[in-house]
Amino acid sequence: MGEATNILVYRTTSRVIYGDTDRMGYAYNANYLRWFEIGRAELFRHLGLTYRQIEERGIYLPVSEAYCKYISPVAYDDLIVIEASLDNSVRGGVKFDYRIFGEDGASPVAEGYTKHPCVSREGRVLRPPQFLRDFIQQKLAEIA
Amino acid sequence: MGEATNILVYRTTSRVIYGDTDRMGYAYNANYLRWFEIGRAELFRHLGLTYRQIEERGIYLPVSEAYCKYISPVAYDDLIVIEASLDNSVRGGVKFDYRIFGEDGASPVAEGYTKHPCVSREGRVLRPPQFLRDFIQQKLAEIA
Amino acid sequence: MGEATNILVYRTTSRVIYGDTDRMGYAYNANYLRWFEIGRAELFRHLGLTYRQIEERGIYLPVSEAYCKYISPVAYDDLIVIEASLDNSVRGGVKFDYRIFGEDGASPVAEGYTKHPCVSREGRVLRPPQFLRDFIQQKLAEIA
Amino acid sequence: MGEATNILVYRTTSRVIYGDTDRMGYAYNANYLRWFEIGRAELFRHLGLTYRQIEERGIYLPVSEAYCKYISPVAYDDLIVIEASLDNSVRGGVKFDYRIFGEDGASPVAEGYTKHPCVSREGRVLRPPQFLRDFIQQKLAEIA
Repeated sequence: MGEATNILVYRTTSRVIYGDTDRMGYAYNANYLRWFEIGRAELFRHLGLTYRQIEERGIYLPVSEAYCKYISPVAYDDLIVIEASLDNSVRGGVKFDYRIFGEDGASPVAEGYTKHPCVSREGRVLRPPQFLRDFIQQKLAEIA
Repeated sequence: MGEATNILVYRTTSRVIYGDTDRMGYAYNANYLRWFEIGRAELFRHLGLTYRQIEERGIYLPVSEAYCKYISPVAYDDLIVIEASLDNSVRGGVKFDYRIFGEDGASPVAEGYTKHPCVSREGRVLRPPQFLRDFIQQKLAEIA
Repeated sequence: MGEATNILVYRTTSRVIYGDTDRMGYAYNANYLRWFEIGRAELFRHLGLTYRQIEERGIYLPVSEAYCKYISPVAYDDLIVIEASLDNSVRGGVKFDYRIFGEDGASPVAEGYTKHPCVSREGRVLRPPQFLRDFIQQKLAEIA
Repeated sequence: MGEATNILVYRTTSRVIYGDTDRMGYAYNANYLRWFEIGRAELFRHLGLTYRQIEERGIYLPVSEAYCKYISPVAYDDLIVIEASLDNSVRGGVKFDYRIFGEDGASPVAEGYTKHPCVSREGRVLRPPQFLRDFIQQKLAEIA
């Protein structure tokens, strides 16, 4: 029961549309950051607190860093699996790690991360609020 | 000096990037609506009143209708010409007509229009405000 | 049992992500054309012939016209319903009609259409191929 | 005249449109990767060899890694400056570094990089071709 295994992780699927592809025939690189957003939004929803609800409490989580490694191309109409996991070890904000899988699901076609400070409506950086820390701790306890 | 010639029109250019194309090898259909936005924004800027300034005065011009006819495909790295013209005959809002030209500039590769009501910050439909009607009338008078 | 009621129609859902919204707070107008694409792709899939399979047979259906009427704004994180129906009365191509519904599903928040000629890999306009006409006729017969 | 100063660098401008923003009021994170593409494409064009021409010689440079650090938000209608520089020290491919500046141009609002292997039409990873290495060496010599 080491901490390393206590990670909040969720997988969701998304379909690659024509508008996601480029003339090389595969999904365009910028769209992966949209998929990362889908991944973390669905992880939050699965945990029981949507990102919309977080914003309604006055907390915003803009992206301060994004990284993506493109391993294999993703083709039109593929049903990809987006896996997002919450890395709770980051001080002062939230970090998500992502893996994207193709239709076979065997090995990731892309992986990456995003970092997010907690920010007020006016853009001021805040300490992660108590309600958010409590929520994450409770969810981690549930799966411990 | 018939009314028909008194139109506010402006041409701007934009480059088709990889991210605009799809696997058919040409620009994806939804991106033309982005180009329409560029066209009307640059027309406003050219006239001396940016859309940002209109919003700063509490007036929003969301799109209520959009139409595009795709005549010839537009290829990667093409320098397109976006022509936007303000159709002042529409009651209760604003209409823009667009023509997009390819690198040769001879005949349009696409054409279309968008319609926009005037809306308050809260989303309430308003009569076009006096400052906007005056501005358009003045610009029309200048080119008459 | 008039022909008018024999329409091929399908509804699918999609989630509005942050990247779909603009600073007015609602989904940006160009994204509706992406949703239209999702709608017709899922209609084809539901009928048993995916658009990818159509392309694999050498037939492409680029968009020649697109129209959208934006009735009510669509907000972040809304689960929209995209309804696509195949209008089989169009000669020489394919037309789809769309209605987009918000979370309540009561009245459409947007509606529109797209038209598509049948085109070869090289971009030459073709008569709709026999396999596609047969397929559509068969599906219409099934629901008659 | 150390090697460190011999970098191929170019600055181009781009306008933030409504469709680039999200409901937080600023440019959405994925769009920065589009701006990175604009930056490297315009650097190539400035050097005298467009990316389209590279592809016409059978060489593709897909993105294998992308990183972006978002330093300050970028607002609607801002005229951003995209600076791309070619990092020639990378073996077996091409790396670009980017800095994005806001309207004041003082300090970057974002920075990042992309890595690109050289790939054949069929997706096979190649050694950077002689013509591309010669071209880059010649351009570096010109500014030495």
